[in-house]
Amino acid sequence: MEGGALKKNRWATWLRLPLPFFLALGIRKRERERERKREEVVEYFLMPNYKKPSPSFTFAIVFTYCATTAHKRSIMSGKDEVVLLDFWPSPFGMRLRIALSEKGVDYECREENLSDKSQLLLRSNPVHKKIPVLIHNGKPVCESLIAVQYVDEVWPRRSPILPSDPYARAQARFWADYIDKKIYDLGRKIWAAKGEEQEAAKRELIECLKLLEAELGDKPYFGGESFGFVDVALVPFYSWFYTYDTCGNFSVETECPKLILWAKRCLEKESVSKVLPDGEKVYKLVLELKNQLGLE
Amino acid sequence: MEGGALKKNRWATWLRLPLPFFLALGIRKRERERERKREEVVEYFLMPNYKKPSPSFTFAIVFTYCATTAHKRSIMSGKDEVVLLDFWPSPFGMRLRIALSEKGVDYECREENLSDKSQLLLRSNPVHKKIPVLIHNGKPVCESLIAVQYVDEVWPRRSPILPSDPYARAQARFWADYIDKKIYDLGRKIWAAKGEEQEAAKRELIECLKLLEAELGDKPYFGGESFGFVDVALVPFYSWFYTYDTCGNFSVETECPKLILWAKRCLEKESVSKVLPDGEKVYKLVLELKNQLGLE
Repeated sequence: MEGGALKKNRWATWLRLPLPFFLALGIRKRERERERKREEVVEYFLMPNYKKPSPSFTFAIVFTYCATTAHKRSIMSGKDEVVLLDFWPSPFGMRLRIALSEKGVDYECREENLSDKSQLLLRSNPVHKKIPVLIHNGKPVCESLIAVQYVDEVWPRRSPILPSDPYARAQARFWADYIDKKIYDLGRKIWAAKGEEQEAAKRELIECLKLLEAELGDKPYFGGESFGFVDVALVPFYSWFYTYDTCGNFSVETECPKLILWAKRCLEKESVSKVLPDGEKVYKLVLELKNQLGLE
Repeated sequence: MEGGALKKNRWATWLRLPLPFFLALGIRKRERERERKREEVVEYFLMPNYKKPSPSFTFAIVFTYCATTAHKRSIMSGKDEVVLLDFWPSPFGMRLRIALSEKGVDYECREENLSDKSQLLLRSNPVHKKIPVLIHNGKPVCESLIAVQYVDEVWPRRSPILPSDPYARAQARFWADYIDKKIYDLGRKIWAAKGEEQEAAKRELIECLKLLEAELGDKPYFGGESFGFVDVALVPFYSWFYTYDTCGNFSVETECPKLILWAKRCLEKESVSKVLPDGEKVYKLVLELKNQLGLE
């Protein structure tokens, strides 16, 4: 892995830098021990020049400490109000639910009726008028991949989603962008189109999934050893594979067995398993949708 | 602007935090002045407990300083090898040339012949086989907006491109993504299509540009007071406006006068003016292209 190699080199470089510091510390320590042997330590601890701080100074220090602690507590207490405007079969909405769950953020999920969108949705995403929208303390973030990055930046401590190395980040963003440009539209053609258009979409989808499988390689996750940005972007489509298989009369598992193993590995995580709906439930909805759209 | 308001609030919050520190410092200062009046300052400067550091400790400190300086110099000296695979009229390539120029990064620009792509391009971007590709120390980064973010992350000190606040970053990414999804394709329809398709594209492009103009508002740049991510993403299309105007028989300047003022403001920056080609030169190329494609 190129990203891994880079990370290693970076670490090596940065470890080399503080080496003289450690050396200096070591030498300084020896010096100190010699001094201690000379029993100068007693004089040191008696601190002949020490003066008791004035009451005003003591008060200021205590006040500073209390104010800082209170401020920290107000940050940590999670006054955050997080609302997700969503529609359960949306793979884009699932990304955000997985990301928020990975971060341990409490949120309220509001199901939208896409044939009668709420005023809140239209106001929050006036440009695209689409779910999902993440509303954090009243401020909306649209477009799922952008919102997942936002979640990762606002709650950076737990379960980092994007890698810390800039090159690995760029690669993760590239593959997530590739998934966005390809999978949903091709999948839609498989269940909504017929004849040559459907066949062409099927061929291209298989090609895309094989490319993603090759990118995964022998790693447990796209993010390497840990579940990351590309995993969050792709795994929601696993719920749609049953629909693609049935409508397109093929099997993703036969074409890309390693990708299915990866999806099952992701499903071992609670953040994923509690979010992804059953494939047959999605298929039932698609059948209803086809009826409504007069496609069958 | 929501981003601006957020930033202001943040500042207010962070300014509130060190207040007790400043208070403490103020009180401490008064105490010191009192002491000085007591003429204890002489004793303080005589430093009766001061001991000359041992030669080994002095050596370690000097060694540390030299090593740190050498390391910094090796970082700053630009051992980076940066190559850009590009084609001069590409608005996507221009984004990278502007970003690299803003960061003061030296790079080699290699013009690609898009009808006979180089092996290096095909190897560097096997998925999309498109320019621009940024190759940093042999490692390729594809997709212009991802590469601009990479440039911003690798060279963070000079001219930050993305804002530091997560919400403002998400907003910048949203608008850059909007530009990516709309402008180029609509523009292409204006110069390549005819009749109703062309008219529809024209109407939609004007709508998009008006939306972007509204987002700009009265700010000097999309990034607020400073040139940022959305500016880098949009300004290259200014070179294409002459083509859109001429082929679509309309005037972007009449429709969106504030956007043109903004573009001219951006052109005052050398990083932009030296990169953007003349509108008529782009138009000439488009005419040749239309001939080649048999569109006229």
